[in-house]
Amino acid sequence: MASTFGNKIKVSIFGQSHSKAIGMSLENIPAGMVLDEEKLNAFLARRAPGRDENTSKRVESDRPEFLSGFMTDENGRLVTCGAPISAVIYNEDARSADYEELKDIPRPGHADFAAHIKYGGFEDYRSGGHFSGRLTAPLSVAGGIAIQVLEQLGIKIEAEIDEIGGVKYESKEQMDSLIEAARSEGDSIGGVVKCTIKGVHAGVGEPIFDGVENRISQAIFGIPAVKGIEFGAGFKAASMKGSENNDPFVIDENGNVVTESNNSGGILGGIAIGSDIVFRVAFKPTPSIAKEQKSISYSEGKETTIIAKGRHDPCVVIRALPVVEATSALAILDLVL
Amino acid sequence: MASTFGNKIKVSIFGQSHSKAIGMSLENIPAGMVLDEEKLNAFLARRAPGRDENTSKRVESDRPEFLSGFMTDENGRLVTCGAPISAVIYNEDARSADYEELKDIPRPGHADFAAHIKYGGFEDYRSGGHFSGRLTAPLSVAGGIAIQVLEQLGIKIEAEIDEIGGVKYESKEQMDSLIEAARSEGDSIGGVVKCTIKGVHAGVGEPIFDGVENRISQAIFGIPAVKGIEFGAGFKAASMKGSENNDPFVIDENGNVVTESNNSGGILGGIAIGSDIVFRVAFKPTPSIAKEQKSISYSEGKETTIIAKGRHDPCVVIRALPVVEATSALAILDLVL
Amino acid sequence: MASTFGNKIKVSIFGQSHSKAIGMSLENIPAGMVLDEEKLNAFLARRAPGRDENTSKRVESDRPEFLSGFMTDENGRLVTCGAPISAVIYNEDARSADYEELKDIPRPGHADFAAHIKYGGFEDYRSGGHFSGRLTAPLSVAGGIAIQVLEQLGIKIEAEIDEIGGVKYESKEQMDSLIEAARSEGDSIGGVVKCTIKGVHAGVGEPIFDGVENRISQAIFGIPAVKGIEFGAGFKAASMKGSENNDPFVIDENGNVVTESNNSGGILGGIAIGSDIVFRVAFKPTPSIAKEQKSISYSEGKETTIIAKGRHDPCVVIRALPVVEATSALAILDLVL
Amino acid sequence: MASTFGNKIKVSIFGQSHSKAIGMSLENIPAGMVLDEEKLNAFLARRAPGRDENTSKRVESDRPEFLSGFMTDENGRLVTCGAPISAVIYNEDARSADYEELKDIPRPGHADFAAHIKYGGFEDYRSGGHFSGRLTAPLSVAGGIAIQVLEQLGIKIEAEIDEIGGVKYESKEQMDSLIEAARSEGDSIGGVVKCTIKGVHAGVGEPIFDGVENRISQAIFGIPAVKGIEFGAGFKAASMKGSENNDPFVIDENGNVVTESNNSGGILGGIAIGSDIVFRVAFKPTPSIAKEQKSISYSEGKETTIIAKGRHDPCVVIRALPVVEATSALAILDLVL
Repeated sequence: MASTFGNKIKVSIFGQSHSKAIGMSLENIPAGMVLDEEKLNAFLARRAPGRDENTSKRVESDRPEFLSGFMTDENGRLVTCGAPISAVIYNEDARSADYEELKDIPRPGHADFAAHIKYGGFEDYRSGGHFSGRLTAPLSVAGGIAIQVLEQLGIKIEAEIDEIGGVKYESKEQMDSLIEAARSEGDSIGGVVKCTIKGVHAGVGEPIFDGVENRISQAIFGIPAVKGIEFGAGFKAASMKGSENNDPFVIDENGNVVTESNNSGGILGGIAIGSDIVFRVAFKPTPSIAKEQKSISYSEGKETTIIAKGRHDPCVVIRALPVVEATSALAILDLVL
Repeated sequence: MASTFGNKIKVSIFGQSHSKAIGMSLENIPAGMVLDEEKLNAFLARRAPGRDENTSKRVESDRPEFLSGFMTDENGRLVTCGAPISAVIYNEDARSADYEELKDIPRPGHADFAAHIKYGGFEDYRSGGHFSGRLTAPLSVAGGIAIQVLEQLGIKIEAEIDEIGGVKYESKEQMDSLIEAARSEGDSIGGVVKCTIKGVHAGVGEPIFDGVENRISQAIFGIPAVKGIEFGAGFKAASMKGSENNDPFVIDENGNVVTESNNSGGILGGIAIGSDIVFRVAFKPTPSIAKEQKSISYSEGKETTIIAKGRHDPCVVIRALPVVEATSALAILDLVL
Repeated sequence: MASTFGNKIKVSIFGQSHSKAIGMSLENIPAGMVLDEEKLNAFLARRAPGRDENTSKRVESDRPEFLSGFMTDENGRLVTCGAPISAVIYNEDARSADYEELKDIPRPGHADFAAHIKYGGFEDYRSGGHFSGRLTAPLSVAGGIAIQVLEQLGIKIEAEIDEIGGVKYESKEQMDSLIEAARSEGDSIGGVVKCTIKGVHAGVGEPIFDGVENRISQAIFGIPAVKGIEFGAGFKAASMKGSENNDPFVIDENGNVVTESNNSGGILGGIAIGSDIVFRVAFKPTPSIAKEQKSISYSEGKETTIIAKGRHDPCVVIRALPVVEATSALAILDLVL
Repeated sequence: MASTFGNKIKVSIFGQSHSKAIGMSLENIPAGMVLDEEKLNAFLARRAPGRDENTSKRVESDRPEFLSGFMTDENGRLVTCGAPISAVIYNEDARSADYEELKDIPRPGHADFAAHIKYGGFEDYRSGGHFSGRLTAPLSVAGGIAIQVLEQLGIKIEAEIDEIGGVKYESKEQMDSLIEAARSEGDSIGGVVKCTIKGVHAGVGEPIFDGVENRISQAIFGIPAVKGIEFGAGFKAASMKGSENNDPFVIDENGNVVTESNNSGGILGGIAIGSDIVFRVAFKPTPSIAKEQKSISYSEGKETTIIAKGRHDPCVVIRALPVVEATSALAILDLVL
C-alpha cells in the first residue's frame, strides 16, 4: 500500500511536484456512468492555484487528460466502460531551479527531512516531490469522479470553512483580511474545515477497523497539512455527560427512526445511522513561509537557515475544501459500492 | 476487510459480547520471540473490568488461552514459531437475559440501531454483539503481543489520561471524584487520552494513504467511543502561525538532526521524523447510563424509553489506556516490520 | 497476508498440527443465513481421517466448535448475525513424541526444511506444523459455510477423482487396489481431481489479476500437495488449433447465449461466461512414506536417512475432494458477493 | 482489486486496446535503483508486435514514457526516488473502425461476451478493450523494472518455449514452419512456456494462500490465453510414486543443503527451498483466426458468423516469453521485498 487506497475501489496516485506528470488510476467505478466533464472541471477549478490573490501564483490549468476507462458516446460524452479510469496532468510550469537549495536543506514543517531519511538521499527534493500538495490534484480528479457516482446514489458532500487562523469563519472579507495580514508578515495561517455528507444510508460501514470513521480518517490524513479529525461533537464530546451526548432515537413525521441531536456525527459503532455524517478537519498553517527559519545542512552537518522560495499560499484552507470533499468521497464510495 | 487490520501483519478480531468466546488471530509476528506471559497478563489486567469501584462490575479473568502460534521451550516459555498466533477468551459470565429488551429497543449512543439495519434484524443484540467494548479484550491481546515485539525494536508506547470530564487531569483523587459524581447521578463522563510513542525511526510510514497518521487513526477509531484524534498540536495548530507551528530542525549534542519543538507530533508528510510520536484521542462519555432515555421500539414502530441494565463503567477512559497502547502498537508494528 | 484470503470475505486459518487447537475466522458472510450443521458435519466427514482402510488412522472427530458469528434461533439452529464467524477444533489425539526426530531431520517432499530456514529454527516441526494437511480441516469448515451460502445463490460445486496413480479413474475397486498396492510397498500415489462449478453467472470475475482463474488458483495452491491446475482444456489447449479450441457461441432453446463446447472451462478473459466452470488439480503422491529416504541432519550437518513415522494416507486424493470444493467455494464466494 | 496486484509492491495496469493510452503505476520499488533503459527497451522489444513475419503486423514502438518515480542523475540516467513509478504508452496505431462489428458480435475464445454481460453493454468492445493482449505491454514495463530489481538481489528469470502446437520445441525452423502452416490455413496454434527462476533463497513465500505457487499462479493467469500452470513435475507428479517424486535432501560440495532432483519445482509447502523455481504455463491458440466462426448477434438475438479482422499472431507464445518473465518477476518481487 501507500499511495493506493480502497477495498472495493482502488485509487492509485502517482507523480511528484516536478516530475513530467502527475496522475491517478481508479478501478471499479461502475460501467455506464456519464462523466459530466464541465462539472468536474468546475470542481477542480476550486482546488487549482492562481485563482485569486490569496492562493498560490503558480498558474496551471490542471485539467486532467483522461487516458482510459471511458468510451465516447454519440454526443461526445465520456461514459465509463468498466475498465480502470486513468488520468494525467502534465506539469507545465515547473521551475525546478527554485528548489535546488532543498537538496541540502530541509524545510521545517515539510516532509523533506522525513523523505531524505526514508529514501536514503534519493528522494525527489523538488518542492516536496511525491509529498507535495500538488498531488491533491490527481486525488481531486479521482474524488471528483467519486462525487459524481455518489450523487447518482443520492449522496452529497459539502465542505465549508469553520475556522480560519483560530477564529470562527464569519465572512469572506474577514477571512481575506486574516490571510492578507499573515501574508504581509511573510507568515501563514491554518484553519478548520467542516464537512457534511448527506444521504448515506443507515448500515454503511464495517465493524472495528473499517467503519466510516476509520476509513474517512485514513483517507483524510492523506491530505497534506491535516493534523486532526473529529466526528460529530468530537473532542467536545469528551467533556459532555452521557445524558447530554447521547442522541435520543425518535420517529419523524415520515415514520423514520432518526436522532433528535447529532452529536455522533451520524456514526455509531463505526456504522452510519442515516443522519448527516459530520466531521471537522484541522489544517496546520502552510509550512512554507517567507520568514527565515532554522534548519540544517545535510552536506555540512550543521545548523543553517532557510527562507521558502517559490510561490505559496499563506493559507491552504480555501483550496482544501474540494480536496476534503474529494477524499471523503473516495472513502464513502469504497464503503457503499 | 472490517475486523481485520494490517498490510504486513494481519490481525483478525472475532466474537460478540455474549457469544461462546471472543478471540483473535495474528499473522506475521516474527518467529523466535519469547512471549512474556506475566507481562502480558499484567498489561491485560489494566483493561479488565472489575478491578476497582470505578470500573464495570462484570468479573472475568479475561486471560487469553493461546491456541496456536507458539512452541513451548524447555523453560515452559511460549516462543513464536512463525505460524499465526491465535487466542480465545471464553465468555464465562454472560447474563444474556439482562439484554432481552435490546432486541426491540436500541440504546442511544450505541451501535444497536446501526447493526439492526445493517444486518437486517439478525444482529446479535446482546450488549452490542460484535460492537461491544468487550471486543477490546482480544484487540488488547493482539496489541499486547505487538507491544512486546516493538519493545525488542526499541519502541515504547505510553498512554495517559489528559482530560477527564472536560477538565485537565491532575490527580487520581480528582478523577475519582468526577467519576463518582457522574455515577451518583446515574450519568457518565468522557475524556481525552494522550499517547506517546518513543523510538520510531525517521522514515517509518508510507506516503499519502499509509502514513503514520493514516494508519494510527484507522486503527484507533476501531476502539468504541473514540470520536476524534489529533497529532502533535492538532486542532491547536489550526490557530497558529506557520512561524510558530513549524518545528525548526537543529542538531543535538550527539550530532543528530532533531526538532526544537514537536508541534508535528513527530510526523511530517505522514512519515516519522524520529521525534516522539504524540497524539490525543477523544472518548465520548459511556453511552450506557442509569437514566431513562428516549428511544424507539422496532416492533411497535413508536417512541418509548429505555434505562440501561447490566453493569457499566461511568467512565471508560481509565480502562481505555492499555487499549490505546495496544491498538497503536498494531498500527506501528505494521509499518515498521 | 499469508494464511488470510479474500477481498470481500476474509478467511484466516490458524493452528498447527500439534498446537492446542486449529481454527478459522471468516468475515462478511451475510447475516440471516441458517447454517445446516448436519450438512456441514457430513461434508467435513468426507475430509476427516480414519473413515476407512485407505485413509490415515489418526482418529479425530474434527467437529468444529463455533465460537462466534451466530445467534441461536428458537429451533436451536445457528443463524449468522453478520459478525465474523469463528470456529476451533481442539487437537485431541496428538502424539508429539512421534515427531521428535523431525526437529533435526527434514522429511523429503514436506515443508519441514523450508519452514526451518524461513523461521530460523523456531518452526513448529511437529508433523509439518502450520503446513500440515491437518490445516485443511479449518479450511474446510470455512469453505463448507461458503458452499452453503453459494447454494442459496444457485451455485453448486462438485469435485470428483479424475485420475489416480496415473490412470483414469474407473471404479472404486480399481482405485482401492491401486492404493492398497502402494501401501503394501510402503509407498504412495497421487492423482488428479476434476472440479465443476455450476450456476456462476456470466460476468463474475475481475480483469487481469482477479479473474476466476487467478483467484481459484491462488486459493487451490493453498491445499498441500497441489502441484498444478488447468481450466477447461488446459494443457491440452496448447496442442489444439484455434478453430478447434474456440467455443462457438450459439443460442439455446431458451434463447440464452451459450457455447457449443466448453474448452474454456467457462472462463474467458478471467470472467465467467455462464457455462460450467471446470478445472483439474494435480496432487502429488503423499510425501510421507514408509520407505527409507535420504535426508540430512541439521545438527550434524551431514546426510542421513529417515522413515516416516505416524499414520499417513498412501493417497490423499479421496479426502482432498471436499477440500477442493471448500477452497474453490471461498474463491468463488469472494467474487460473487 | 482487479487490475492491481501485490501486497508489498502495488502494480496497477490501466488502458484499453484503443483508448488514448495504456499504462501502469508501480509502488514501493526501492529508492536509489538505476534503471537501465536500454536493457528495458530491449526486453520490451521481445514482446512488441511487428518484429518478424510470425507476429502481429500492428507496428508500434511501445516505448513507455515515464511520468514519475525517477530523478535524472548527472549522467542522464533514471534513478528511482521512492515515489510511485508511472509510465504510459500512447496508442498511436489504432484503427478502431476495424472493430465496429464487435459491438454486436462477440468473438469466440475472447472476453467480448463476458465483458458485454459484466459491464451491461457499456464495455469497450474495440479489440477486447481492457482484456486485450495489448495490456501485456504495461504489464511488461512494470515487470521489466521488477526484473532489474531482482537481478540486483541475485535473482534471474528465464522463460523458454517448451512445446509449440503440441510438439516439443526443437528448433526455430520447426516452430516457424508450424506457425506458418497454421497461418496459411487461417488458423492458430498454442504452446507451453517453461520458466525458471534462479537465486530465490530458501524461506521465500508465505503459508497457505501466499506461497510462491499461489502468487505466481495468481499473477500468471493475468496473461491472456493462459489456461494452465504446473510447478516442478506438476501433472506428471500425479502419476508418480512418493518414492520417485520426493526430492531427497543431500549436502553439496559447498556444504549446502540441496535436493538431488527437483520434482517440487523448488517449492515445498508454498515456500522456496533454494532450488530453481520451475513452472510450465499452457497457452491456448490465439482465438482470433481468419476462419469463419459461429457466434451470435446481440441486437438480433440470433446466431451468425464472424471472421476476425485486423492483424493477429497465429501464435502468441514467442511474444509471451518476456510477459511470463515480467509477470512472475512481479510475483516474486512482492514476496522477496
